[in-house]
Amino acid sequence: MKRKQDFASESFCRPPRVLVTIGDPAGVGPEIVVKSLASIQAERVTVIVVGDKRPLEKAEHLLGIKIGLQEITDISKEAIEPGTKYLFPFSLLKDVNLGKPTLEGAKASYEYIVFAVNTILKGEAEALVTAPVSKRMIMEAGYPFKGHTELLAEMSKTQDYAMMFVGPKLKVSLVTTHLPFSEVKRALSCERVVKVIKLTHMALKHYFGVKNPRLALCSLNPHAGEGGLLGYEEKKILEPAILKAKEQGILVEGPLPADSVFYWAYMGKWNAIIALYHDQGLAPFKLLYFHEGVNLTLGLPFIRTSPDHGTGFDIAGKGVANHKSMKNALCLAIDILKKTHQRH
Amino acid sequence: MKRKQDFASESFCRPPRVLVTIGDPAGVGPEIVVKSLASIQAERVTVIVVGDKRPLEKAEHLLGIKIGLQEITDISKEAIEPGTKYLFPFSLLKDVNLGKPTLEGAKASYEYIVFAVNTILKGEAEALVTAPVSKRMIMEAGYPFKGHTELLAEMSKTQDYAMMFVGPKLKVSLVTTHLPFSEVKRALSCERVVKVIKLTHMALKHYFGVKNPRLALCSLNPHAGEGGLLGYEEKKILEPAILKAKEQGILVEGPLPADSVFYWAYMGKWNAIIALYHDQGLAPFKLLYFHEGVNLTLGLPFIRTSPDHGTGFDIAGKGVANHKSMKNALCLAIDILKKTHQRH
Repeated sequence: MKRKQDFASESFCRPPRVLVTIGDPAGVGPEIVVKSLASIQAERVTVIVVGDKRPLEKAEHLLGIKIGLQEITDISKEAIEPGTKYLFPFSLLKDVNLGKPTLEGAKASYEYIVFAVNTILKGEAEALVTAPVSKRMIMEAGYPFKGHTELLAEMSKTQDYAMMFVGPKLKVSLVTTHLPFSEVKRALSCERVVKVIKLTHMALKHYFGVKNPRLALCSLNPHAGEGGLLGYEEKKILEPAILKAKEQGILVEGPLPADSVFYWAYMGKWNAIIALYHDQGLAPFKLLYFHEGVNLTLGLPFIRTSPDHGTGFDIAGKGVANHKSMKNALCLAIDILKKTHQRH
Repeated sequence: MKRKQDFASESFCRPPRVLVTIGDPAGVGPEIVVKSLASIQAERVTVIVVGDKRPLEKAEHLLGIKIGLQEITDISKEAIEPGTKYLFPFSLLKDVNLGKPTLEGAKASYEYIVFAVNTILKGEAEALVTAPVSKRMIMEAGYPFKGHTELLAEMSKTQDYAMMFVGPKLKVSLVTTHLPFSEVKRALSCERVVKVIKLTHMALKHYFGVKNPRLALCSLNPHAGEGGLLGYEEKKILEPAILKAKEQGILVEGPLPADSVFYWAYMGKWNAIIALYHDQGLAPFKLLYFHEGVNLTLGLPFIRTSPDHGTGFDIAGKGVANHKSMKNALCLAIDILKKTHQRH
């Protein structure tokens, strides 16, 4: 398995490529993909959309936009130009109604991901941007699907990975993600916290070009446990994790009270925050960047971003879906691709 | 015990009064009190500062501000003019060094509160604004002190009370406050959630003049429990609480995912959010209003506000303390006082 670092130092004989899966064809995916592609230039990088043609055509018609994707059926063989936008067309769907999810559509959305990841693992692309899929629908369609990120990790045999949310002035990594509140405490371990600190540190260096990243770790308890009066996890788990990370040369402060750390990170004191659970990180993050945030997966052997919202079946097909998050996800993947593949 | 509603409808024979305790005399309290009083007009309301004279003089000297408080030694008897700012002077401290906390100072800070509450309970004032005290130091000084709010509740025999944080575009009430993370789940009950919903509803009506308050209740689990996949507290505790509150005619939505509710409340969809635990409410709130937020106590038989920060011993005496939160606390108390005592 090639790790991100290897990619970064490798000399490619072709321009880097980003794959874009269209997500659930009945969700907002096709619309936000069309809108995003229409609004960006991708110089020095090749963009290849992965999905059925029909939902994209419907989205183009709905939006009155023609993005003129060039069809390609064998990524490994055909001539691919940087700066051009391609479509690798699937033919899994006879038709699609935007806003009306089907099991057939959910199945297709799963197949797009599998194809994209396999393409990347074969070395034919380096980055993946994924439009939203419906976990529930994919499960109903019969796949043992735990989530986008989990599937990518499994397919690439990645053990240690984490989600980072990226906004203009705030980056937040999560130690735990989709866990019931009552299971968070048990899931916290010194080892896992150290891993997420390291993944975050590496991402800031390699993905964002920060020379000496400064990190902040959230505490679990209010007022950072108030010296033990309000909980012991700071002393038992988080302080030892900070020490271990520091021993490895990482600048990380904490555990810090969650009710002040986001403000100071926003003001520039730290480059990223490590939050311990979903809502601790995402309630503040999405208050600031509800429409603009990007989900970046750390630890995979390739670059992966996605918008930080769901399929929006209720608004799909109306032309009202906000594409900022998708556009930012695409731009971030391209930025990182350029940064980590500078020989081109 | 007179309840807030009684106060609101009662015809006073004097203008309403707000007491301001200076908090720990070695903290930022005296400075932020002086700065706040210097920057506000209190028409139709009488402001009475409660505390030792020495720390206030030191703060005035430090800041180069003269607020010219008029001394008063018997609030019940002496002639008190609205619009004038008074000092009820204590003589508990020989001297004080701003930034150097002492047990003597902590003790004094406790006595100021007790005096102020007793004055209010005797019917001689209607509102209280408290500058920060040090819980730890007051406990070390030998008092069984659980916190400002708890003391006020105990003295006024108030069983059901809650903290609300007030910012220009976001109001957040807390169901639980200073609890270890691992105890939050046990502390959540349908009954308590309904109480906080009702207290918030009443505050919006009576304190803020909102005719038909719209409230949002946060969920405990990510994605509001995702239909039971990510936790059951939504179904067991929060949904029944919503139903009960609705039966009482309260417009409350939820339980809603904490990672979107703050954004939509900020955008005006709801007048206030009910958060389940300290960091759930305060991490987003303080990201927006780190220096400006006001802590408003709901359920007491009098109006009480305070700044939402601590004593700041490390910056006290340097003249750098930000007084926005204290000023807003004072202004909010005066606003509410005027709204609930409109006969004057």
